[in-house]
Amino acid sequence: MGELDLIKWIRKRAKYGKSVSLGIGDDCAVIDLRNIKSLVITTDTILDGTHFIQKKCKPDQIGRKSITSSISDIAAMGCRPSYALVSFSFPENSDIKFCKDVFRGIEKAADQYNVQIIGGDVVSGNCPLNINVTAIGVISKSINPVKRSGAKPGDVIMVTGRLGGSILGSHLKFEPRIEEGVLLNEKFHVNSMIDISDGLLVDLNHIIEESNLGAIIDERQIPISRDAVKLSKTTKKSPIFHALTDGEDYELLFTVSEKKSKEISGSDLFNVPLTAIGYAKKEKGLFIKDFNGKVRHVKPKGYEHLV
Amino acid sequence: MGELDLIKWIRKRAKYGKSVSLGIGDDCAVIDLRNIKSLVITTDTILDGTHFIQKKCKPDQIGRKSITSSISDIAAMGCRPSYALVSFSFPENSDIKFCKDVFRGIEKAADQYNVQIIGGDVVSGNCPLNINVTAIGVISKSINPVKRSGAKPGDVIMVTGRLGGSILGSHLKFEPRIEEGVLLNEKFHVNSMIDISDGLLVDLNHIIEESNLGAIIDERQIPISRDAVKLSKTTKKSPIFHALTDGEDYELLFTVSEKKSKEISGSDLFNVPLTAIGYAKKEKGLFIKDFNGKVRHVKPKGYEHLV
Repeated sequence: MGELDLIKWIRKRAKYGKSVSLGIGDDCAVIDLRNIKSLVITTDTILDGTHFIQKKCKPDQIGRKSITSSISDIAAMGCRPSYALVSFSFPENSDIKFCKDVFRGIEKAADQYNVQIIGGDVVSGNCPLNINVTAIGVISKSINPVKRSGAKPGDVIMVTGRLGGSILGSHLKFEPRIEEGVLLNEKFHVNSMIDISDGLLVDLNHIIEESNLGAIIDERQIPISRDAVKLSKTTKKSPIFHALTDGEDYELLFTVSEKKSKEISGSDLFNVPLTAIGYAKKEKGLFIKDFNGKVRHVKPKGYEHLV
Repeated sequence: MGELDLIKWIRKRAKYGKSVSLGIGDDCAVIDLRNIKSLVITTDTILDGTHFIQKKCKPDQIGRKSITSSISDIAAMGCRPSYALVSFSFPENSDIKFCKDVFRGIEKAADQYNVQIIGGDVVSGNCPLNINVTAIGVISKSINPVKRSGAKPGDVIMVTGRLGGSILGSHLKFEPRIEEGVLLNEKFHVNSMIDISDGLLVDLNHIIEESNLGAIIDERQIPISRDAVKLSKTTKKSPIFHALTDGEDYELLFTVSEKKSKEISGSDLFNVPLTAIGYAKKEKGLFIKDFNGKVRHVKPKGYEHLV
């Protein structure tokens, strides 16, 4: 694979809006920022064997995941993504068609979510496929990004979509919740938000630790995905276990005042289910009310990715 | 290695200036951009076996290189770096001390060059060490970034420092030419600039291709490093061959009007040698005048990195 040839190929495909003063092909990209208050920026790496299995995936699926997982972080701030930089580390002697197909997956997702790819890097070596995407969103004066640390005691804990079993395929195909994140921020003024990448319990723990609070969630309220049910049949673990601990759902987990929570539940603005699953509270610690109504203290159980 | 533990450790060490509204530890970082015109942004990956040999390097040297190679791209725009995001892919079971030492190398270089580390990612898997750094510079209203495409016919081609033999150690230890880049941009209005990462010939070719021009350089004027001479003794290639084709010098290569070129040569503002090595010209192609005064056409010979 010729790295420079691939970069040239990628560059020819690029189309930029007015705000990109300089795109792919120089030492840096240049973004015009007049009338912008601030920007949100994130970077995320996916690695063959850890976040996907190259042999079991189509190249465009891998590409798609690399950018949607970064975009999801922007959505989790209640913001819209605008730009991305993509860095590939390809195994030596990768087939150029494969490389291009990976990029096409990125490009298609970028188009779908109105993200401009303005730069990146291509290297190759004795390594598994590794893709790093830096995503950027710009924030106008009237918008504030939603932090993890803004949860308040009494906030209702809510989640988009249904959880668990992403390993059966949704970790490659998920839709980052951009429109939902922006709505939740701009219209419903949610107090804290995160995307579920490490698993519900771990990510909820991030919110309460950052906000210096505790939380209790109700097992009976957790929206369980069909894949969590399906997966539980082979793993011999319960569907709720998968919904609580599986990673890479890329749903939004947020806290919001009780009043706004009711408005959200009654709103017809959302195309995905939104479910109240518990409350934030002053007393530290993470608690679960189980199916029998019994409350137990839990440690945030982490997601081990694919391996 | 615990990924979350390492992130916590990194986060505790972070100190931010006023413009960082939100640093490490949320879904995204937030940079305040009031009164900023635009920003320059770049991303660069270094990979064990391709850009360094882990076994032969100190961990802090690897960390240093990961950030200085990105910073060098900002310098090549004639701008100052301000922020960085760092993504690590560590081999599974990496020693936590090793990981921290790599980060300390990044941190020390970031401090040296006034760069704030505002975010990143840590993953691990069955992979060689891979570090990606996204670097960002902010541009106030009076400054324009220097592109590769701005060279004009008759421009003098100049270079900072001495070239070749970086594999003997300078590829790990180089100083990115930030102050020189900013001076060349703001005070001497250079027309085009690039940092030499792929080798003088290849990078000069980037400039002339982007500028739709040709160039002729004089072998007798190329500043050859001591390491190029030293290396030539074992490779049996000439020192000038190394100076022309070795990569990772991270010196600045730029073109500038003849008048300004003389001002640069007569200036005492620079702490590194600046050498005129040739001219840009209308006729396409890359030409070299050799030690006998004979002009020959050359193809840009690429740098193959370490392997």
